[in-house]
Amino acid sequence: MKILIPNTIDLPVTADVEAVVYDIDAEIPDEHRDAEVLVVWHNSSSWLQEAARTLPELRLVQALASGADAVLNAGFPEEVRICSGRSLHDGPVAEHALALILGAVRRLDRLRDAQLEHRWDDDFNEVQSAPESRGSYTLDAARVTIWGFGSIASTLAPLLTALGAEVQGIARSTGTRSGYPVHADADAATVLSETDVLVSILPATDATAGLFDSTVFDAMRAGSVFVNVGRGTTVDEGALIAALESGRLRAAAIDVTRTEPLPASDPLWEAPNLLITPHVAGNRPAGAARLIDANVARLAAGDDLVNQVRP
Amino acid sequence: MKILIPNTIDLPVTADVEAVVYDIDAEIPDEHRDAEVLVVWHNSSSWLQEAARTLPELRLVQALASGADAVLNAGFPEEVRICSGRSLHDGPVAEHALALILGAVRRLDRLRDAQLEHRWDDDFNEVQSAPESRGSYTLDAARVTIWGFGSIASTLAPLLTALGAEVQGIARSTGTRSGYPVHADADAATVLSETDVLVSILPATDATAGLFDSTVFDAMRAGSVFVNVGRGTTVDEGALIAALESGRLRAAAIDVTRTEPLPASDPLWEAPNLLITPHVAGNRPAGAARLIDANVARLAAGDDLVNQVRP
Repeated sequence: MKILIPNTIDLPVTADVEAVVYDIDAEIPDEHRDAEVLVVWHNSSSWLQEAARTLPELRLVQALASGADAVLNAGFPEEVRICSGRSLHDGPVAEHALALILGAVRRLDRLRDAQLEHRWDDDFNEVQSAPESRGSYTLDAARVTIWGFGSIASTLAPLLTALGAEVQGIARSTGTRSGYPVHADADAATVLSETDVLVSILPATDATAGLFDSTVFDAMRAGSVFVNVGRGTTVDEGALIAALESGRLRAAAIDVTRTEPLPASDPLWEAPNLLITPHVAGNRPAGAARLIDANVARLAAGDDLVNQVRP
Repeated sequence: MKILIPNTIDLPVTADVEAVVYDIDAEIPDEHRDAEVLVVWHNSSSWLQEAARTLPELRLVQALASGADAVLNAGFPEEVRICSGRSLHDGPVAEHALALILGAVRRLDRLRDAQLEHRWDDDFNEVQSAPESRGSYTLDAARVTIWGFGSIASTLAPLLTALGAEVQGIARSTGTRSGYPVHADADAATVLSETDVLVSILPATDATAGLFDSTVFDAMRAGSVFVNVGRGTTVDEGALIAALESGRLRAAAIDVTRTEPLPASDPLWEAPNLLITPHVAGNRPAGAARLIDANVARLAAGDDLVNQVRP
């Protein structure tokens, strides 16, 4: 079985296949148009449309991105199976979420700014250690709420627990997931009033558009922290800026914005106590080779595939 | 027994003693110079030197900091026992160490700087996801070496393991601690050549003074990361700056410096790819009152004390 591997990622595939590395910016060479499996990562839409027309033996397109929408829309014949890289991003996104949570709680942004001024931030030292701020500058005993409790949250939550946090979730329906209590979004106001750190891992859907607005921020405990590693469209960014300016939010850290890249003129850049990273949380699929090996073996055996999104 | 408690921390001591709260910025009132126990937290060196001369009944100085070097150097009479707050900082220091490790690996300093320029850092996005940088921008599969493998390391190591890192230690003698392999410092060069992230949790002693010098940094893998939550005296700061400027170290994050507060003119402030926090890792002793109660009881009973560092 011939499998086409993109040159945008290092993939030590071990399955018994003929693995051919191709350039995502060039045409597929004629001698490799007999490939049965195509792996895609960072390919353009036009490249995918071309591939959909020129690989007659194709049986599987394995996307490594979390969403396979670009592949689904490329026009591959109906009998070609399409799998996403959904599960590959749990670890990287959870790791970045933890970096942003710790960065916001321990105020690495503020301390970096002081460093740029050659200033040893004694004021921070004092407020951090003041008897009355106990619980604000550490995850130990902090109440962390994760809104959007899927596989990324299930990876992140135990890390927070290990740091001493009390973790709970908010999702469409109530219940227990991966051992953590999850509340229905209808009860969000009550949950938020007792939350020290709110973490969003929500996808962009009609239901989540603008969900984090002034109503949500007003419901949060004064002095709490907001972190977003989901999608920028879920946030009313004016309301976020207002909550930071008023001090209701002590700090925030976001990896996503409504418009990406964020324009230089956007007021978010200057919001106080906000750390922005440029959508780099899940920038590295983890375990892609294992996923491909598994799906190649399943394809050969005629079994169901992992992360199959079509048919 | 009279015990002097600093006004810098809320300490609900329950031992049967006369607890007197004192101001760390003022002279000790004459009527309290008969104290037998002195608790210190954030006291200045000059204050400690003064106290060493003016408390004739003193039997114990209980530091709440992890290292008691400032107390040890203050000139207290030889018969005065000195105890550190070592065990009180395992959780807080491990948490800050993790914040700095993630901050350095995921380059929150660089991304904050880009934010201050209103710049979405596409260059970072590209280098972070490039095949050849695999393992550099994540802890997943990263080889992390902790130099100084005591109780803080035992708290930190499982957090790193949970993020996918391979953790090992360096200490005076080889062996296994808390389930992790620990190498003798004589073998450091070999260990360092295969280390992605080096974390120092070493105390300030004669043996560790200037330990992290050009020999150590040259032994490290090109592109590795250095984090220090131990003591500033362990680092040859000129060698650290040189290692960052040459690119041998891809990034570093330090919570401690040789001189604290770091003077505004110090070249460390401007070293490239370095994040500095103002000695805030263990800024909140956890369980200090329990430690004091225990040591007061042991002192009265003539037993060995907890965390005793002198004599």
